[in-house]
Amino acid sequence: MSAEPLKNDLFLRALKREQVPYTPLWLMRQAGRYLPEYRATRARAGSFMGLATVPEMATEVTLQPLDRFSLDAAILFSDILTVPDAMGLGLTFVTGEGPKFERPLQDEAAVNALEVPDMHKLQYVFDAVRMIRQALGGKVPLIGFAGSPFTIGCYMVEGQGSREYRLIKTMMYARPDLLHRILSINAQATTHYLNAQIDAGAQAVMLFDSWGGVLPDGKFQEFSLAYTKQVVQGLNRQVNGEKIPVITFTKGGGPWLEQIASCGADAVGLDWTVDMAAARRRVNDQVAFQGNMDPMALFAGEAAIRAEARRLLDAFGPVGRGGHVFNLGHGISQFTPPEAVSALVDEVRTYSTRFHVT
Amino acid sequence: MSAEPLKNDLFLRALKREQVPYTPLWLMRQAGRYLPEYRATRARAGSFMGLATVPEMATEVTLQPLDRFSLDAAILFSDILTVPDAMGLGLTFVTGEGPKFERPLQDEAAVNALEVPDMHKLQYVFDAVRMIRQALGGKVPLIGFAGSPFTIGCYMVEGQGSREYRLIKTMMYARPDLLHRILSINAQATTHYLNAQIDAGAQAVMLFDSWGGVLPDGKFQEFSLAYTKQVVQGLNRQVNGEKIPVITFTKGGGPWLEQIASCGADAVGLDWTVDMAAARRRVNDQVAFQGNMDPMALFAGEAAIRAEARRLLDAFGPVGRGGHVFNLGHGISQFTPPEAVSALVDEVRTYSTRFHVT
Repeated sequence: MSAEPLKNDLFLRALKREQVPYTPLWLMRQAGRYLPEYRATRARAGSFMGLATVPEMATEVTLQPLDRFSLDAAILFSDILTVPDAMGLGLTFVTGEGPKFERPLQDEAAVNALEVPDMHKLQYVFDAVRMIRQALGGKVPLIGFAGSPFTIGCYMVEGQGSREYRLIKTMMYARPDLLHRILSINAQATTHYLNAQIDAGAQAVMLFDSWGGVLPDGKFQEFSLAYTKQVVQGLNRQVNGEKIPVITFTKGGGPWLEQIASCGADAVGLDWTVDMAAARRRVNDQVAFQGNMDPMALFAGEAAIRAEARRLLDAFGPVGRGGHVFNLGHGISQFTPPEAVSALVDEVRTYSTRFHVT
Repeated sequence: MSAEPLKNDLFLRALKREQVPYTPLWLMRQAGRYLPEYRATRARAGSFMGLATVPEMATEVTLQPLDRFSLDAAILFSDILTVPDAMGLGLTFVTGEGPKFERPLQDEAAVNALEVPDMHKLQYVFDAVRMIRQALGGKVPLIGFAGSPFTIGCYMVEGQGSREYRLIKTMMYARPDLLHRILSINAQATTHYLNAQIDAGAQAVMLFDSWGGVLPDGKFQEFSLAYTKQVVQGLNRQVNGEKIPVITFTKGGGPWLEQIASCGADAVGLDWTVDMAAARRRVNDQVAFQGNMDPMALFAGEAAIRAEARRLLDAFGPVGRGGHVFNLGHGISQFTPPEAVSALVDEVRTYSTRFHVT
C-alpha cells in the first residue's frame, strides 16, 4: 500500500465531520458511459467484465473523470455483482438488458449450497485497488465499495434486475429462513471483500443498498439494515493509524433515516427526496451526509445546474459540526453532457465556501 | 343518479373517520388481469381502450371482483390517461409496452397549444359511472378517480412510461414556466373531470399521484402537491347532503406525509414503506389512511398473507378517532393468484374487528 500522503483529503475530512474549506464533491458512476473516453476504453475491452477484471483497464477508467474534472475522490471501477459472481452464480452482461445470472437462487437446494467465496477469486478487484492507489499518487482518496447484502441478494434470487422484486419478496414472506441464510452469507462475504479492499489501499468504503427501499417498513430493518450493520461492524476501520470512513446509501431510505444513521457508518448517502436540513435535524448531526442532487438536473443547462446546486447547498446550510460531501442522489445518467459536470463542480467549489469556517 | 341507499357504507364511514365494525377493504386495480373473467372480457373487447370506452364493458369488469370477493368498495374501470387523450395527444396501448402518446408535449408550441378539453369527449366515462352505480344497486360505494396533474403530465411530456423521467425533469429544471402551464391546465381539467364523475354518481374520488415520489424535495411541493391541492379544493364535496370523501395517494410520498395530509383530502393512501403507527402520530389522526400491504405479499401463500395482514392491522392499532381503509400500497400484480385475495379479505374482516369499538 502506497504511503504517499494525500494532496487533497477534504473528502475524508468531511466524512469525519472535520472542518474543510469547501464542500468536497464526487459523483456516483463518475467513471462511466457519459464520458467518450470511457466508451472508447470499454470498446477496446470488449465487455463490461472485461473492463472490470483487468486491473490496468479498471485503473484507466477510474482515473478518466479526475483528468477532466476537479473531483475530490476517486471510486474503484467495478460492479456490485462481483461477489455473487465469485459465489459461482455465473454473471453475464447482456447488451441492452443489464446483468444476468445463469444460476439464480430459486430453490432451497441452491440456497443451501451457497457459500462465502474464496477471496482469491476476487483478486482482480484488490489488484485494481492497489494499482489505482499507485496511479493516483495521493491526488485524492480512493473509495472502495460493495453492494449491500440485500441488494446483491435481489440479483441473486431474481437472476436479473427487477421491477417488482416478486421472487425475492415471495421468498421473504414465505420462507424468511432461506432469505436470512442468503443474507447472512452475503454479509460475511461482503465484510471480507471490503476488508480486502481496505487492505489493498481503499481509503474509504461505501455500501450501496440500491434496492433496500423497495421493502416494507419492518422488513427493511430485518432484511436489509440488519445485514448492512453487520458488515459495517465487521470492517477494519483503522489502518496505520488512519480512520477508514464508511458510507452507506439506501436509495429511497428517507423514511428510515434515523435507523440507518445508527448502523455505525460515518456517513449516510441521501437521494433527492430528502431535505438535507430536516435530515440533519433528524440525526442531530451525528453522521455526515452525502448527496443529494437529482441526476436529471444535469440536463437543464448551466444556469439551472448552478441554481440547483446552490439550492441544495443552501438547504444543508452552514456545515458547523456536521459533514457534507456533495454528490448526486443516484448514479449519473449515461446521457449526461460532460460539460454539465464541469458547471456543477465549479458551482459547488465556489458557492460552498460560505458554509465553511476556515 | 340512483337514490338507492347503500347496503354497505363502511368504506365511506372509515374515510370520514366514523366508527365501523371492521376495517373495510378494497384493492387498487382490483378489476384487472389477475382475474380470468377480466381477461375473457378484455379479449372480447379487443383492446384496453375498447374496454374502457364502452360503458357496458367497463361496468362488467368493475363488478367482477365484487362477485368473487367480499370487498367494501367498487372502483370505476378506466385509466388515468383518458384526460390527456381527450386533450388530443393520441393515446394508444402497445401490447407489452404500455400506454403511448402519439403527440407528446415536447416543445413550447405544443405546450402553448394545450387546452382544457371539452368534457363531452369524456362522456363515456361519466356514462360508465352512471351504469355502474345502477348495476351496483347500493351493494357498496363506487369510487371515481383521476391521475394527479403531475402524474398525467409525466406521460404527456415523456410520451410513455419512463424510468428516469428525463424529459419532464429537464423541462422542470430548465423551463419551469412551461411545466407550470401544463400542470395548471391538467389541474383545471382534472377538477372538471372528477366533478363530472361525482355528478354522475361517484360516491368518493381518488387522485393517483403515481409519480410525484420521483421528484426532489421542494420540487414535489411545487410541481405535484400544489396542483393536487388545487384539484382537491375545486371538488364538489357535498352532493344531496352526502359528503364525497377524497383520497390522495402519492407512491413514495412518505417523506412528505404531513404536507400531503394538509392538502384538504379526507384520506391519504400510503405505500408499504411507511409505518402506519408513525404515520398516525405524524398527522395526529387528522386524516384517514388507506393502505398499505406490499402487493408481493400476496404471492407467499395463505399463512404468510394472513400473518402480514395481521402485522399491518396491528401496526395501525386501535382505530379510535382515526380512520383506516385496508388496501395494497400499489396496484395488485397481474400474476396474483385470486385465492390470495380471498385469504386477505377473510383475514382483514375477522382480525380487524378487535380494533374497532362497536
